[in-house]
Amino acid sequence: MLDIPIGLDATGTRRETDSMGAIEVPADRYWGAQTQRSLIHFSIGDDRMPKAVYHAYGHVKKAAARVNGRAGRLPGWKAELIERVADEVIDGELDGHFPLFVWQTGSGTQSNMNANEVISNRAIQLVGGKLGSKSPIHPNDDVNMGQSSNDTFPTAMHIAAVKEVHEHLLPCVRALQQAIETKAQQWHDVVKIGRTHLEDAVPLTVGQEWSGYAHQLQQAADRLIGSAEGLYELAMGGTAVGTGLNAPPGFGEQAAAEIASATGYPFTSAENKFAAQGGLDAMSGASAGLRALALPLMKIANDIRWLASGPRCGLDELALPANEPGSSIMPGKVNPTQCEAMVMVCIQVLSEDGAVTFADTQGNFELNAMRPIVIDNFLHAATILADACTKFRQFCIEGVQLNRDRIDSYVDRSLMLVTALSPVIGYDKASAIAHKADDEDTTLREAALASGYISADDFDRIVRPATMVGRT
Amino acid sequence: MLDIPIGLDATGTRRETDSMGAIEVPADRYWGAQTQRSLIHFSIGDDRMPKAVYHAYGHVKKAAARVNGRAGRLPGWKAELIERVADEVIDGELDGHFPLFVWQTGSGTQSNMNANEVISNRAIQLVGGKLGSKSPIHPNDDVNMGQSSNDTFPTAMHIAAVKEVHEHLLPCVRALQQAIETKAQQWHDVVKIGRTHLEDAVPLTVGQEWSGYAHQLQQAADRLIGSAEGLYELAMGGTAVGTGLNAPPGFGEQAAAEIASATGYPFTSAENKFAAQGGLDAMSGASAGLRALALPLMKIANDIRWLASGPRCGLDELALPANEPGSSIMPGKVNPTQCEAMVMVCIQVLSEDGAVTFADTQGNFELNAMRPIVIDNFLHAATILADACTKFRQFCIEGVQLNRDRIDSYVDRSLMLVTALSPVIGYDKASAIAHKADDEDTTLREAALASGYISADDFDRIVRPATMVGRT
Amino acid sequence: MLDIPIGLDATGTRRETDSMGAIEVPADRYWGAQTQRSLIHFSIGDDRMPKAVYHAYGHVKKAAARVNGRAGRLPGWKAELIERVADEVIDGELDGHFPLFVWQTGSGTQSNMNANEVISNRAIQLVGGKLGSKSPIHPNDDVNMGQSSNDTFPTAMHIAAVKEVHEHLLPCVRALQQAIETKAQQWHDVVKIGRTHLEDAVPLTVGQEWSGYAHQLQQAADRLIGSAEGLYELAMGGTAVGTGLNAPPGFGEQAAAEIASATGYPFTSAENKFAAQGGLDAMSGASAGLRALALPLMKIANDIRWLASGPRCGLDELALPANEPGSSIMPGKVNPTQCEAMVMVCIQVLSEDGAVTFADTQGNFELNAMRPIVIDNFLHAATILADACTKFRQFCIEGVQLNRDRIDSYVDRSLMLVTALSPVIGYDKASAIAHKADDEDTTLREAALASGYISADDFDRIVRPATMVGRT
Amino acid sequence: MLDIPIGLDATGTRRETDSMGAIEVPADRYWGAQTQRSLIHFSIGDDRMPKAVYHAYGHVKKAAARVNGRAGRLPGWKAELIERVADEVIDGELDGHFPLFVWQTGSGTQSNMNANEVISNRAIQLVGGKLGSKSPIHPNDDVNMGQSSNDTFPTAMHIAAVKEVHEHLLPCVRALQQAIETKAQQWHDVVKIGRTHLEDAVPLTVGQEWSGYAHQLQQAADRLIGSAEGLYELAMGGTAVGTGLNAPPGFGEQAAAEIASATGYPFTSAENKFAAQGGLDAMSGASAGLRALALPLMKIANDIRWLASGPRCGLDELALPANEPGSSIMPGKVNPTQCEAMVMVCIQVLSEDGAVTFADTQGNFELNAMRPIVIDNFLHAATILADACTKFRQFCIEGVQLNRDRIDSYVDRSLMLVTALSPVIGYDKASAIAHKADDEDTTLREAALASGYISADDFDRIVRPATMVGRT
Repeated sequence: MLDIPIGLDATGTRRETDSMGAIEVPADRYWGAQTQRSLIHFSIGDDRMPKAVYHAYGHVKKAAARVNGRAGRLPGWKAELIERVADEVIDGELDGHFPLFVWQTGSGTQSNMNANEVISNRAIQLVGGKLGSKSPIHPNDDVNMGQSSNDTFPTAMHIAAVKEVHEHLLPCVRALQQAIETKAQQWHDVVKIGRTHLEDAVPLTVGQEWSGYAHQLQQAADRLIGSAEGLYELAMGGTAVGTGLNAPPGFGEQAAAEIASATGYPFTSAENKFAAQGGLDAMSGASAGLRALALPLMKIANDIRWLASGPRCGLDELALPANEPGSSIMPGKVNPTQCEAMVMVCIQVLSEDGAVTFADTQGNFELNAMRPIVIDNFLHAATILADACTKFRQFCIEGVQLNRDRIDSYVDRSLMLVTALSPVIGYDKASAIAHKADDEDTTLREAALASGYISADDFDRIVRPATMVGRT
Repeated sequence: MLDIPIGLDATGTRRETDSMGAIEVPADRYWGAQTQRSLIHFSIGDDRMPKAVYHAYGHVKKAAARVNGRAGRLPGWKAELIERVADEVIDGELDGHFPLFVWQTGSGTQSNMNANEVISNRAIQLVGGKLGSKSPIHPNDDVNMGQSSNDTFPTAMHIAAVKEVHEHLLPCVRALQQAIETKAQQWHDVVKIGRTHLEDAVPLTVGQEWSGYAHQLQQAADRLIGSAEGLYELAMGGTAVGTGLNAPPGFGEQAAAEIASATGYPFTSAENKFAAQGGLDAMSGASAGLRALALPLMKIANDIRWLASGPRCGLDELALPANEPGSSIMPGKVNPTQCEAMVMVCIQVLSEDGAVTFADTQGNFELNAMRPIVIDNFLHAATILADACTKFRQFCIEGVQLNRDRIDSYVDRSLMLVTALSPVIGYDKASAIAHKADDEDTTLREAALASGYISADDFDRIVRPATMVGRT
Repeated sequence: MLDIPIGLDATGTRRETDSMGAIEVPADRYWGAQTQRSLIHFSIGDDRMPKAVYHAYGHVKKAAARVNGRAGRLPGWKAELIERVADEVIDGELDGHFPLFVWQTGSGTQSNMNANEVISNRAIQLVGGKLGSKSPIHPNDDVNMGQSSNDTFPTAMHIAAVKEVHEHLLPCVRALQQAIETKAQQWHDVVKIGRTHLEDAVPLTVGQEWSGYAHQLQQAADRLIGSAEGLYELAMGGTAVGTGLNAPPGFGEQAAAEIASATGYPFTSAENKFAAQGGLDAMSGASAGLRALALPLMKIANDIRWLASGPRCGLDELALPANEPGSSIMPGKVNPTQCEAMVMVCIQVLSEDGAVTFADTQGNFELNAMRPIVIDNFLHAATILADACTKFRQFCIEGVQLNRDRIDSYVDRSLMLVTALSPVIGYDKASAIAHKADDEDTTLREAALASGYISADDFDRIVRPATMVGRT
Repeated sequence: MLDIPIGLDATGTRRETDSMGAIEVPADRYWGAQTQRSLIHFSIGDDRMPKAVYHAYGHVKKAAARVNGRAGRLPGWKAELIERVADEVIDGELDGHFPLFVWQTGSGTQSNMNANEVISNRAIQLVGGKLGSKSPIHPNDDVNMGQSSNDTFPTAMHIAAVKEVHEHLLPCVRALQQAIETKAQQWHDVVKIGRTHLEDAVPLTVGQEWSGYAHQLQQAADRLIGSAEGLYELAMGGTAVGTGLNAPPGFGEQAAAEIASATGYPFTSAENKFAAQGGLDAMSGASAGLRALALPLMKIANDIRWLASGPRCGLDELALPANEPGSSIMPGKVNPTQCEAMVMVCIQVLSEDGAVTFADTQGNFELNAMRPIVIDNFLHAATILADACTKFRQFCIEGVQLNRDRIDSYVDRSLMLVTALSPVIGYDKASAIAHKADDEDTTLREAALASGYISADDFDRIVRPATMVGRT
């Protein structure tokens, strides 16, 4: 094995072949004939297969090579060579050699072949061979040994999804949740008016309100973790239709163990490969976990922008950081832009979850051939959700302030404090007092005393916002 | 033809037959063997094929009988008999004899046979024959002559959809639009603060705001009308696969003309029957018209409940009618319940539009066999949208009042009136004034004069809300 | 307490009152003023709040009465009286007294008040009181003691959802799964051709294929169970805004324990009531479990109808039971109607899951007031899914037969058996053989031997379908 | 005005200011402070505002400058300068200076300011001024004169959408439709078996089947054109809230006329600016036109891949071009990859239409601040749909061939030709014949003659596929 840095110092094109014949490929790229054909046939929009899928494919090819090498099905030096290049793939060093579009064959075969071809040629380079010769490392016979696109692409999807969820999304969510909890604790005792149906209700504390936000996020994160557990089941070993043809017994289990060891996640071999390859249920299950995050995030972002509405003609309980001028025409305007970005991201995530789900329904027989759309939407949704959590935390939550005067004055004016009288004088009399105050535009206390249903002492003892917010 | 009132004075069961053999049916029902089998095989939930589909089928069977009779393919007396019963179907007098579920064969064949069987037996009754004998009126050979489920069910769907849209939904929408326009005119000159991003913006009049609502509804109604035009194309004449096998030349055109004449709508024979039967595009096109209504209705309902939020801790610009007590625990609470019902209806309509769309994608070859789900969702969506418009108009819009004091005070306090200064002193100085007023909690006028950028006279001349709202 | 059977022997109307004043209600109904107002204001379509919600409300009111009674907040005889009537509600005996529409206030307050009013009046009847007098059992002060719609409606939603999932849906799914497993075992050794991308692939056994179906259903059922666990958290005790105002300490925990005991499910008091009332996450989480079932069910139904396509111009591997004549025009036609119904049900479930999700995003502050739409869609989706599983099992799966001749002939003719040669002669030569056979329209064996790449003995040893299907 | 080529020959950073203060921007970029702030605050994923939006903004700024210049509100030389730079924007020459993300403020203000800043600085460069000085061309006071983001961003959205639909999507759809029509004509007389419910039905010609595809596409294209007409209404002139504050009378009309003249499309000023800015209905209306295309495209792609299924174990009526090897493990496999890509694109388009619709519901008061998500999804959906049509045409439709032997043999074997006997011998006897043939595995003719219901002569005269396909 030579010590040749990554890169092909050539210009023009190189001739590559596959079972359809020969085709010219760019001389400075490692890919082969099938990748090149896909580029021609599928230049649809500018959506490229996410690089994370190829990094995951690095794990797949490495694991297969190790298992094949250990079993002697692949000569040791071949296995090592493939492993070496697979590590380069994992590390993203070959990213520039994976150009394919999302909208390609529904099995992801072309991306699998892209990986096979690149690894083959890079390995050939490393031993001083002739690019495109498929010798000594053949893309199908060696790099793809014991594998099919139909089991490796699902495997790569799961690996990429697990890593995105656990290494990007969840940390960002946890940090946001923590930032919200910090605010909840800081504002633990600030009594504010509650609102239900957008209408004045009984009081709670700001800390309680924000504890609800934090709790929703925590539960959503837990839900995501649970929803994503199905991703640990890998299809490898099923090969073309789930029977494992051309893979030796135990191949799937051993490959899964290798991947688990390399990534640190508890991957296992899927119990039933026909389900794993014919369906996409683990992916759509995990996608339900993404949407589970989008739901409370959208509610939280909406609450915050409403509570910050104003400054003079809205609710104005919160003051958001003024990150940028809000308007090109209205000078001095500050808008809840982080909230808006978050809401839009949540809507996008919900619609991408819809794409995943729809695609899941369209499988046939031994393969669901709607896989690229699924992994592309999943990874995209997870990514923008993660980043939106970070920006929302940094540029909205961490800098938000309370307008205490406004908050206090709402509590003072609300008529719904009458609710505390209900257990004493009954719902009907309490209701009459509230209506009286509203009709006559008086304070609740004035109306209550005027009604004769309650004494001033009792009123003052019972109707105390600070004691109406419970103990939580 | 005897003059026998509708109804079967019998108890127990009656033996009916079809190509699968014999089966017992309730003796007091006109339906036959295929309807009975469907009842057994498809009792899924409690969703029944909408009666409007059968009323439309009455038009289908009547038109076919007239055309067949006129051409001499059906003896005149048979044609008249079928017409007579078809009129009973159209008028809903036989509704109790159409019991089938929505979730049945995807072609609607069982509902077509339900119609054929009921018409056959009712006709047999009218001439004193033996129920179930299929003589002298055979459900397939006579009632279904020149037809297939594959062309008549789509035809009935279109008729039912057109009638629901034009006779129920559009009048309800127009009445709501009119009620909103009345308010817009009534409040033509009431200046209020505008809000963008939920934040204070420059003023407009309440009339302008509500003119926007009315205009959105008008455009949505127009959009619906345009979207629903595809429904005028009828599949009849295509029979089983669009070729018109077993229907004579011109049958589709003549039947469409009969239906047009009977219903008063410009129905025509679909130009390409393969498209009409293989696709569901006219239905999903029309469904886009339903969603086009749901979109502004949801926005309007949301605006109104926000503007009515309070009474003391919300925006409180509007006072909604207090139709009912709002809370079981908070005495005196009034909630924007009509708005909430409208928002929920809109969400439901959007999701049912999604079902229509999804079903449209699932056709194969000469038939899209996802038809019952489509017509059920379409008619349901149109119905709840229509009724929600009526209730929303009656119990929300017509009784809504302005809180003038609150509206005026917002205008007085807003800082965004500074925008009017921008063309005079420039955006940057105007912005500085707004920020100064906000920071120092002063009025805009105070900050402006303190800035030295503008004289009091100029300020008072330029910053006048009433002249800032334009001429519309 | 008198022993008076359920029912009001009266005609005409009765005067009932609430804080809005008096209103006439039907004299033969137990409901009161607020229910009557809702009937007037919300007659939108014909969608009624599912009865399961009221049965669940029976549990809520019973639990509250027991806890209040035990604590002495409610006199013992009042508690017993409410419990007695609540049991009638639970058992469905008062179903005719719960007429409200789905499209009502977003908190479900009107359905809570419907329950309060009916229980109040029925209890009054049982002690010989005057209907509408609210004495001795007041709908708010007694039946609703310690409760709000904002905590009881979510509680009733969870109870109803749990019961529908566990007592209706899951048993139906399990029975279907079992029926499929039975077939999988029965056909364990029947070798058939696999298909990927709809194209001929390598063989597997019918039993393997169906084991995939069964496994998908099992995993989906498990996913549903996990997804629905959030439903065990009950909001009771949070009252109006989550603080528990007017409910004593421990009320939520004790009520949850009562409900758990009465229903047999591990209900607990929600850890954070602000999250439970402000969000709908447990419901949308559970709804993801419904969709998780719809996804494989749609795939299975599609596979089966495709495999049964024909009989002479399709794949024709399966023969479905001929439950009914398939066509009104094409004699003798048999259609995969159960599959079609299942596919439509699955599409409906997915769209209703979309409605649940959308509604979940639309909460504000201390309450998500989009609750009726959520429970209605959830229960409807679960119900039609359950029933569709049952019908599909009874009228499709249990009677499906294999067309062995067709299945065998496909295996014999497929060119993809060439895959087994790949590890021996390499992918490229194997590919050449397959193309040669296709181009020359020969058998694979002929092309292989003609190629010279493999001997007849080796071919016959290696290319044996029965040994290509693995060991699973 | 100097003749300075586009580009800033500088390294490091430059100081730019806005009302928030100063900030460093890359010295080789024209953008200013607000763009830079947005880059910092909104780096969410890697979704960038589509360049088409900025090209459209070029039209907006040019039109405004012309109108302002003509009216003397802007000095002539300033107007010309802005026009000159706007032309560079329109031509895409400044694309590298529009880096912003999609997930930003919901009004698109930051993209409007990006356009204002870039035009300002490029204009300053052209007259030899100091970058960042805002003199002599101020981004707000000059470039944005008479405008707001709230009316210009919607305007730019409409322009970009119209151009994408008419200049990219529709031509690609028309070309596909034409290619399909060519095939329909070519195969006008080829009789094939029809299929309904996936089951054998009566015959039609291949040309008829494909005429249905072409007709669906034509109707969908017409539907799109109609649906997109609302886009011709432009919000310009409404400024901040629809009242037109700071824009002179007639500004909107004149600007729309300029844009119409420059683009060649019949743009007009929106009749009601409150509707145009508060809603997104024209966009969601147009989006319904995109989905209207996706629906038949998905059906067509599905039909074609099913008809091409096999080659030996599927329907095998069509032979698709073998563009690439289909499998990494199964040598010689050819897959319907163009169909799969098309199906995935259609699913994606439907989900993006869902995002547009959802966003449309989330407007409040005078602005729907969910605009970037809408234009991004719309343009993306239109683009991938257009490109997918092209690839599908080039690499699937144009090269598809008929397998005549297979097509003929299906017609010969189908039992559903019995339908032609129905008008002669009645449905019931025809049905008995079909069942008999099926049960006894004979030809239809054998069963018919054996039944005694029809003579051989009559059978041969009536049951002739070529005469059963009608005249269309």
